[in-house]
Amino acid sequence: MTKEIEFQDKVGGVASPKGFFAAAASADVRKKGDDRLDTGVVYSPKPCTAAGVFTINAIKAAPVLQCQNVLTQGAPVHGIIANSGNANACTGEQGKQDATAMAHAGASVCGKDENSFFVCSTGRIGEPLPMEPLLKAIKQAGASALSEKRDNLDFGNSILTSDTREKVCTATFEVDGKLVTVGGSAKGAGMIQPNMATMLAFITSDIEATSAQLQEVVTLAVKSTFNAITVDGDMSTNDTVLLLANGESGVVLDENSMELYSKAVWKICDSLADKIVADGERITKVVELLVSGAASEEDAENVARAIGNSLLVKTSWYGNDPNWGRLIDALGYAKATIDPDTIDISYEDIPALIKSTPLPDNKPQWKAVVSKARFSILINLNQGEATYRLRASDLTEGYVDFNKSE
Amino acid sequence: MTKEIEFQDKVGGVASPKGFFAAAASADVRKKGDDRLDTGVVYSPKPCTAAGVFTINAIKAAPVLQCQNVLTQGAPVHGIIANSGNANACTGEQGKQDATAMAHAGASVCGKDENSFFVCSTGRIGEPLPMEPLLKAIKQAGASALSEKRDNLDFGNSILTSDTREKVCTATFEVDGKLVTVGGSAKGAGMIQPNMATMLAFITSDIEATSAQLQEVVTLAVKSTFNAITVDGDMSTNDTVLLLANGESGVVLDENSMELYSKAVWKICDSLADKIVADGERITKVVELLVSGAASEEDAENVARAIGNSLLVKTSWYGNDPNWGRLIDALGYAKATIDPDTIDISYEDIPALIKSTPLPDNKPQWKAVVSKARFSILINLNQGEATYRLRASDLTEGYVDFNKSE
Repeated sequence: MTKEIEFQDKVGGVASPKGFFAAAASADVRKKGDDRLDTGVVYSPKPCTAAGVFTINAIKAAPVLQCQNVLTQGAPVHGIIANSGNANACTGEQGKQDATAMAHAGASVCGKDENSFFVCSTGRIGEPLPMEPLLKAIKQAGASALSEKRDNLDFGNSILTSDTREKVCTATFEVDGKLVTVGGSAKGAGMIQPNMATMLAFITSDIEATSAQLQEVVTLAVKSTFNAITVDGDMSTNDTVLLLANGESGVVLDENSMELYSKAVWKICDSLADKIVADGERITKVVELLVSGAASEEDAENVARAIGNSLLVKTSWYGNDPNWGRLIDALGYAKATIDPDTIDISYEDIPALIKSTPLPDNKPQWKAVVSKARFSILINLNQGEATYRLRASDLTEGYVDFNKSE
Repeated sequence: MTKEIEFQDKVGGVASPKGFFAAAASADVRKKGDDRLDTGVVYSPKPCTAAGVFTINAIKAAPVLQCQNVLTQGAPVHGIIANSGNANACTGEQGKQDATAMAHAGASVCGKDENSFFVCSTGRIGEPLPMEPLLKAIKQAGASALSEKRDNLDFGNSILTSDTREKVCTATFEVDGKLVTVGGSAKGAGMIQPNMATMLAFITSDIEATSAQLQEVVTLAVKSTFNAITVDGDMSTNDTVLLLANGESGVVLDENSMELYSKAVWKICDSLADKIVADGERITKVVELLVSGAASEEDAENVARAIGNSLLVKTSWYGNDPNWGRLIDALGYAKATIDPDTIDISYEDIPALIKSTPLPDNKPQWKAVVSKARFSILINLNQGEATYRLRASDLTEGYVDFNKSE
């Protein structure tokens, strides 16, 4: 007998499932002479199965390659080492050696096989990691995790870069009286677009599953969540989503539990993805673009992305200006099958265009919708049945100011 | 016997070639109660051959369709009617009728066939044209052109929207002692990306040529000029480049004159395209991206566009920050064949990366380059022989402020 999912927002995290521990320490990766948490460790004494989704950027950071190697080997996994402040990207052979050394350091503290830890880094590109303090911090955080610390918020904070707040959540469900817990922690902020961008997300769970099952679940969940958000259209070199399972709940992932587990993982991904857009660098709005009536899903996605990444559209949202002209212009260059005379656009339930004919009398109502901090725009191309949902941010002077220098 | 091209920047314009006249008037299209010039007429008493290149946006404004109709008919052309302030886009059947009425009004004043004028509009999308004052202004400007006025600057001003200055230039060359003149006038400012964006460019010439010859010359010229610039990555519904020839010079376009004429038209397009980027909305820099060593021209273009349209790259330029990490990140998601270990990047003659290895000692010199208002970045993928040049602007708080409301 199964029950419904219970979702807890901003509560728990990667150390919430049974048998998972997490802690963080400071390596002063940014060399600012402070004790900001920048090194995190997730640890499961029991071996885990694991799966991952990674950036499709041709320039992959060393830790991305390290994670992919761990998965390829298929050996048991015991945890994750993560650092913020330096992405260990474009760092050549030294970067690869450093990523390996980080994994070994974590494994060594926990007394596990040296290739049983994933390594993830995020931050500035092209600079060598400060290995000495970093290895020291890994030992310190690793020792805390080994002593069964559950510092969910510390870990959540240690992976942040230009984010303003930690992103954590937890979902639970019961199968035959046994509780299954899925916990997540993510970081985002800039370089956020499709296919994840400077985004790390760690999802742990105490179900028993094969790596192949986990890969199926996480691939499907990422598609409509982390891969369907955009802040600035930039895709990073380090994007990583990892899903781990250690079996401590005593529940096996099978026909009976698959639906609830998939839903729980999706919900965690969806919530973390939403938090990432909402915490985009100096943005003020989250806009949900709901494209329907497309000839294909690719068309629907192209239209949503063209609109969600258009600078003119994004700046008009920032200015509370329901400028559907810019929106339809972006739609026109989206590389989708479009009939210029059959497009419907609504700002939530207020139509702006029906069969491409403007309804200017509704303008005050469109303006009220666009003035909110969160709203939806519905676009029906009337060309078919395919749909796509994209969550996008606005573009602000603050974003430009924030990113104009190192 | 032929001579070299003489190019005159910011001088002359569409009424410089023999037998071409131009004038402008005010229709107060923007309904601001002022007498800003917003309606322009170009007129050649002698019939012209013509060619054009248009937006590839699926949503084409009514005047774009009107111009394409004129070219399809292949009848003699006598001129161009242009207005700024209203794009006559997304205006349905009424918009098409209005575009036709504008052409007829121009033709009627000049006593020519009613389908012998091109119509071009630029400005806000989705609002009907104010036809009464507009037709009046067309008559007024048309009468001035008929009386052989050569108001190059007035015409250049009448087509501007958010541009800050008129964009005109002239090129001349001699063939067997006869002078051939090519004159150009353009507007740009926002929605500027590949495939032209809110951009109108008019090029007139007094050579004698077939429409097919003109089409070949203008298509080739546009490819590496107007289609190789970006301000904000948005492609407009109204982009139009027109090339007219009236034969008044007595020189025929043939094997003897083709090279010089093609060069002259290219030079006019290149200069107008440069002026458009440099006059992008509140931008502060023009950056020339020179991609080489690509496996194909498509790869080279994809890399240049990914970099030139990256918000993170553009904001770093604005901040005088030679952040090659953002640049290589954009290059990595550009959908091009890339070897992560063979990339060379230079800021003008100062290498930043050689075979993907950073040269951090050069940083002060990169910074000096990026601090200039105009500079080049050279990217060699070392994958083949293909090259591409893109001119891009930076992204500023001013751009966001300027575009955040109507």
